Amino acid sequence: MSQSYRVAILGATGAVGTELLALLHQRQFPISDLKLLASPRSAGTSLAYGDREITVEAVSEETLEGVDLVLASAGGSISKVWAPKAVAAGAIVIDNSSAFRMDPTVPLVVPEINPAAARQHQGIIANPNCTTILMGVALWPLHQVRPIQRVVVATYQSASGAGARAMAELKTQSQAILNGETPVPEILPYPLAFNLFPHNSPLNANGYCEEELKMVHETRKIFGVPDLRVTATCVRVPVLRAHSEAINVEFGEPFPVAEARELIAAAPGVQLLEDWSRNYFPMPLEASGQDDVLVGRIRQDISNANGLELWLSGDQIRKGAALNAVQIAELLVAQDLLGRSRSAVTTA
Amino acid sequence: MSQSYRVAILGATGAVGTELLALLHQRQFPISDLKLLASPRSAGTSLAYGDREITVEAVSEETLEGVDLVLASAGGSISKVWAPKAVAAGAIVIDNSSAFRMDPTVPLVVPEINPAAARQHQGIIANPNCTTILMGVALWPLHQVRPIQRVVVATYQSASGAGARAMAELKTQSQAILNGETPVPEILPYPLAFNLFPHNSPLNANGYCEEELKMVHETRKIFGVPDLRVTATCVRVPVLRAHSEAINVEFGEPFPVAEARELIAAAPGVQLLEDWSRNYFPMPLEASGQDDVLVGRIRQDISNANGLELWLSGDQIRKGAALNAVQIAELLVAQDLLGRSRSAVTTA
Repeated sequence: MSQSYRVAILGATGAVGTELLALLHQRQFPISDLKLLASPRSAGTSLAYGDREITVEAVSEETLEGVDLVLASAGGSISKVWAPKAVAAGAIVIDNSSAFRMDPTVPLVVPEINPAAARQHQGIIANPNCTTILMGVALWPLHQVRPIQRVVVATYQSASGAGARAMAELKTQSQAILNGETPVPEILPYPLAFNLFPHNSPLNANGYCEEELKMVHETRKIFGVPDLRVTATCVRVPVLRAHSEAINVEFGEPFPVAEARELIAAAPGVQLLEDWSRNYFPMPLEASGQDDVLVGRIRQDISNANGLELWLSGDQIRKGAALNAVQIAELLVAQDLLGRSRSAVTTA
Repeated sequence: MSQSYRVAILGATGAVGTELLALLHQRQFPISDLKLLASPRSAGTSLAYGDREITVEAVSEETLEGVDLVLASAGGSISKVWAPKAVAAGAIVIDNSSAFRMDPTVPLVVPEINPAAARQHQGIIANPNCTTILMGVALWPLHQVRPIQRVVVATYQSASGAGARAMAELKTQSQAILNGETPVPEILPYPLAFNLFPHNSPLNANGYCEEELKMVHETRKIFGVPDLRVTATCVRVPVLRAHSEAINVEFGEPFPVAEARELIAAAPGVQLLEDWSRNYFPMPLEASGQDDVLVGRIRQDISNANGLELWLSGDQIRKGAALNAVQIAELLVAQDLLGRSRSAVTTA
């Protein structure tokens, strides 16, 4: 386990990319060489990795040579082009985009939920959608005790989910409105400052947007329950970072609230946060920058004897994206799975 | 019907009070005399009613003498004291507080839903909670065709619901955060700028807050379905005005989406707003200042063959409070019910 690896971050300059860089350093991921890759536009800028400054390079087949692990967070179209090339060059790719998530040959992994799935990879492991990860780590400990029958979720998604430029736009828009101006949105389709709107991902013919269908299909795949009944309403709210979710969950029998609290309190990746005396529950301000997803306001659904209501806030960039990807990489290291695919290729 | 009435607004200087004043003028409510009443602290200030300036008076038994109609929006504790005195003085009180809403002798009225209930009043008519009114006008046309079995709702409630000072606090907080400062909340319990939190009304032993229980119990009373299954999660969001709601509604049989759309499009008090080609649906920015509740994103629940999902935004101060109260008053005028209670008292 004293081995170290040649790692590349693809999309290093984005909101998730910079968090990946910080987490790799903070969590002392065993790195022998670190490459920061991005589009030619971002090449030449440099980013700090601990005390070192690393220059961002334009991604190319040459830059992928000899890399053991690629953490990709540059969007689906970039991943579709470069993940297969990285795999062909012998790397394992942990991909944060939606490009491969529903590919049956690609494991979709949340380490607290389905770590064993990572072993089945054929070069690419997909990192799930942010809202799906947050909901998954909160519901999984309950699902282990009494299988979930149905989930009705409404989300409160921050600007960070649309990237660093959307976060900047929320700030400049807010300032403009406070100045009495009427800003024209550029990154997001509608004004977000002091406003909110249903998630603007492409709409499916059934009326659900892609973000909502990710919560449905990805949760089914991660939980290993292909027919799990899930419905979602995803909404973008004027919060900078950290998503929140109101989750109504239905079981086949009553689920005592006290037991649900104990399970959440003991589960990895989540933290029970409830102070009923002062109406203090998870909120984005507290969840931002935290590894754990904050879960609280667990209560018996008064409309359904077999239901629970719960509320969560989780850092969309950390557990919702970068942290989960790094945890998958740590899982590979712990199981001595990293570097092998490259060895397998070079010795073939 | 050419009769006109002596009207008093109690709580005239608040967010809802000033809107009541504007609506009475705008809708040409037949007024022979208008009194603006408030706490002694606000007495002496003056407010515009059309071209006139009316001086706010401290509420007292003398100021209520001869008044036909009191529109009260000064909070529950004020209403509990003054509504009975106003009734004793011969007035009908339309009360915007929660003080009398669940009193079995007090009608709880949304004119589009249960106008006949207004006739049963014994002096006080209650105006429902804002989130309840908005949800009610959207669901009632569907409930008429196929009775609703269960509702799961998550709200996105603006600062206006906590009053004019909360709206001001959201602005000053936002400016402070944009300046890099860390503001201390004064009106709301937690920072709202770029943040959100579960509604901070008092928590019931069952884990629901009062705002959520209002949605449950008031909807049952207005719809006349005492055992209607409703569960709610209420959340305060950094929006200035207009509440939004993600509503999952379950029927006893499938409800075709096209039929639901037609019913919403034809119903009073609501407006169907859906442009699927550009992902354009109700949002607070568009709902603010509008009379109609904007409803859209109506879709078949993919987790339940008998379910629909829908989304709405409505002006919390207008249809959620002041407009509904004025509409109740108009209903009394149209049915020639106003001024009678006073006559009944004076001729007794």
